[in-house]
Amino acid sequence: MSAEELAALVNNDDVLGFSGFTAAGCPKAITIALAERAEKEHAKGNPFKVGMFTGASTGDSIDGVLARAHAIKFRSPYQSNQDLRNALNSHDASYFDLHLSELQQYLRYGFLPRPRIAILEACDVTDDGKVYLTSAVGISPTIARLADMIFIELNHYHPKTLAGMHDIYEPADPPFRREIPLYSPKERIGVPYIQVDPAKIVGIVETNLPNEVGAFTPADDLTNQIGENVANFLSSEIKAGRIPASFLPVQSGVGNVANAVLGAMGSNKDIPTFCIYTEVIQDSVIDLMQAGRVSFASGCSLTLSTPALENVYDNLDFFKQKMVLRPQEISNNPEIVRRLGLISINTALEADIFGNINSTHIVGTKMMNGIGGSGDFCRNAYLSIFTAPSTAKNGKISSIVPMVSHLDHSEHSVKILVTEQGVADLRGLSPIQRAETIIANCVAPEYKDILRKYLQLGQKGHTPQHIAAALSFHNTFNKTGDMRNVNFDNY
Amino acid sequence: MSAEELAALVNNDDVLGFSGFTAAGCPKAITIALAERAEKEHAKGNPFKVGMFTGASTGDSIDGVLARAHAIKFRSPYQSNQDLRNALNSHDASYFDLHLSELQQYLRYGFLPRPRIAILEACDVTDDGKVYLTSAVGISPTIARLADMIFIELNHYHPKTLAGMHDIYEPADPPFRREIPLYSPKERIGVPYIQVDPAKIVGIVETNLPNEVGAFTPADDLTNQIGENVANFLSSEIKAGRIPASFLPVQSGVGNVANAVLGAMGSNKDIPTFCIYTEVIQDSVIDLMQAGRVSFASGCSLTLSTPALENVYDNLDFFKQKMVLRPQEISNNPEIVRRLGLISINTALEADIFGNINSTHIVGTKMMNGIGGSGDFCRNAYLSIFTAPSTAKNGKISSIVPMVSHLDHSEHSVKILVTEQGVADLRGLSPIQRAETIIANCVAPEYKDILRKYLQLGQKGHTPQHIAAALSFHNTFNKTGDMRNVNFDNY
Repeated sequence: MSAEELAALVNNDDVLGFSGFTAAGCPKAITIALAERAEKEHAKGNPFKVGMFTGASTGDSIDGVLARAHAIKFRSPYQSNQDLRNALNSHDASYFDLHLSELQQYLRYGFLPRPRIAILEACDVTDDGKVYLTSAVGISPTIARLADMIFIELNHYHPKTLAGMHDIYEPADPPFRREIPLYSPKERIGVPYIQVDPAKIVGIVETNLPNEVGAFTPADDLTNQIGENVANFLSSEIKAGRIPASFLPVQSGVGNVANAVLGAMGSNKDIPTFCIYTEVIQDSVIDLMQAGRVSFASGCSLTLSTPALENVYDNLDFFKQKMVLRPQEISNNPEIVRRLGLISINTALEADIFGNINSTHIVGTKMMNGIGGSGDFCRNAYLSIFTAPSTAKNGKISSIVPMVSHLDHSEHSVKILVTEQGVADLRGLSPIQRAETIIANCVAPEYKDILRKYLQLGQKGHTPQHIAAALSFHNTFNKTGDMRNVNFDNY
Repeated sequence: MSAEELAALVNNDDVLGFSGFTAAGCPKAITIALAERAEKEHAKGNPFKVGMFTGASTGDSIDGVLARAHAIKFRSPYQSNQDLRNALNSHDASYFDLHLSELQQYLRYGFLPRPRIAILEACDVTDDGKVYLTSAVGISPTIARLADMIFIELNHYHPKTLAGMHDIYEPADPPFRREIPLYSPKERIGVPYIQVDPAKIVGIVETNLPNEVGAFTPADDLTNQIGENVANFLSSEIKAGRIPASFLPVQSGVGNVANAVLGAMGSNKDIPTFCIYTEVIQDSVIDLMQAGRVSFASGCSLTLSTPALENVYDNLDFFKQKMVLRPQEISNNPEIVRRLGLISINTALEADIFGNINSTHIVGTKMMNGIGGSGDFCRNAYLSIFTAPSTAKNGKISSIVPMVSHLDHSEHSVKILVTEQGVADLRGLSPIQRAETIIANCVAPEYKDILRKYLQLGQKGHTPQHIAAALSFHNTFNKTGDMRNVNFDNY
């Protein structure tokens, strides 16, 4: 069937589920036809919006085209597309944020609208309903099982020999759930395909389209310094005996800081060759694997630049022995994260002097991307590290403020804070001790005195916030465009 | 040995670990001698403060006497004693808050100072080092293993036949950790005693002292209405098929609202007989067990009034078949909470219209008790419910505000909010939809229009906070003593 024929089967108000996780493994043909259909319906004066569940962010051919077509009724859980971001910040699309590990079970529990249609990208499909995914898993097994109809994009860009890279496992729901029998990143607990009822496969569209993964900003002095700080801290923890000498599996967030951190860990001679247990496998992991510094990587997606993905596909025999892709309720599962004892490294948009983290909202109101897996990992990690540059916008914004303008990870989930300035080890410290340590070690020089002055303003109490001035950095930024203009006499 | 002789073995700056969880199962003789010793040292001009790890809150004979003696250097994780609260809010004692499930592993990992001395209350001790605890477990197995010296209070108030009530299990640490093999609240996975090296037992003090559990405030119209609202909501979820007809294990927080909720669930004919998997077993559980409405209770402590505890001890044959006490890293374990699929019901100090919860800090600065197990449970629950009266101080405080003054549980962990006014089901709602639902269903009548006005002030963005006015309710309360005086023209 054609993408247009399948798109014609979608009704206004339908709920759709998509394969993929980040731009890896997402459909990108039927959704373009769907956006065109929405625009035609709107031109006729008809309402046409759909509800959308994805693994995480997607490519422009899902979130971009549908946001621009004003065709999104609601969307969950994570996004990073500028047009979708504009739509949800202006309330054109309704958006709700979730820990990524929770989406599959909430769909099964009936807590969220059931997807009527699952749209999956596959590298192979068999007559008896075995669907072999491409470069990500996401929520695919669950939406394939719950949906009435399955649309498949059979994308020949991905080799059929990719089959075997995936480990598909869906736990039973309470009260029948058992342990998830995974005890090291390397183990497999499921099957390499999604088994569906072939009668539900309404149509298959053949495509040959590359992933829409954007290039990452290359590392620079700042991100390299953050990476060095993390790597040196970890090697000192090994020496102190607080991390086992054999090391522990590493989870690393997405983006250029995460790439720089992994790069620095790879270069650090005191850190042994390590395993990755994470959601997104980025370019740096592939480099470290070929350099023999990463021995295995378990993830939910191969979010690789086109050259890196083609490198993997050209050397599939090598990489299939060293990688596995899992559904996000397994890659991000609290049970597994805590059992394996992950060293979890995630990026903060903003931190406060008491150790709380804002991962999602710009100046407390505008959604950036969503919480993603950061909560799944940091809460249950062996050791949870957050990283951020100490300032943004040439120093006009301090990433470290008196009170975060939106809170995603409370003080309890934040053990170590790292900026290019240094490392604050917050374990066992009271709020006022945390503030002193963060100001001394992590805050940019031009903000140290301002934050020390704030701390003196603070009313008595365990956490000495001065409530009237707690958001003064943000108010000052909103009014003057520069947090350095803050004047506490105004509060 | 005498309590005084053992107290004399404690040095300034020592780190101590205590048995017990709430006032149940805590030592209460050696600590009184220790407080006297601290006061004598202070009178001589000598420093004398100790670091303290407990299960949760304790009785006055630990936290009260040592706080009044200014003998606490640091203290973690949870407390509820007025004198200790004053000490930590005035920074006389340093305090850091933790999810209760994490303390044992952080002690083992070396992330926190190692307790040199473990002080345990026992109902029996054998020559070969088997220690049988009394009415709680808490962190006892871990501190007994890590400490160089063990002091025991053999409290004859608790019958030796209590042996068998406890299930002591300590997981291995990563990379050697396996699954915690618990699949229903009723199962036992460990042994009924703590095995210690008898050579570490430095002394045993014999006592005969009741627990120091205070009486709970009895239920009233307000707490009963909250309880009814929770029970009716749960029965409607069963009818809708979103909770299995056989129901799921229940976790319920501590206090009079929690007691009222369990009471209302027990009276609701549409809720089947259920199991409890929680940290604190309160009086209401005992009543429901004898009424045949609770079939089994797994907890970390028997936090019972003296008559209720004596009822249990008088009928131990009955209750030992229906109860088990576990270490807090098992009673609160994320792996188990998510596997069993708990219905988790916890109390909020404050909520905001976007669904965030403050469990700990009064007006953002003063520590009330600590986060306790609420984070362990709500984050991993099948369904997470928070309850609060809609107002406090005769309406001068709205429990629901534009932005919580301290955030312990983010929007992602809060599915249902219940006040005496009604129920807000937040699943799948965007922030603005959550705000509209909470204002309509949960906010007190006199605050509805004020909060609707706030929402209109909100700047564009996914979460329409007005940063300058976000803490206006708290500022107004600090200035005038009544949140109803808020005037947004000032912002």
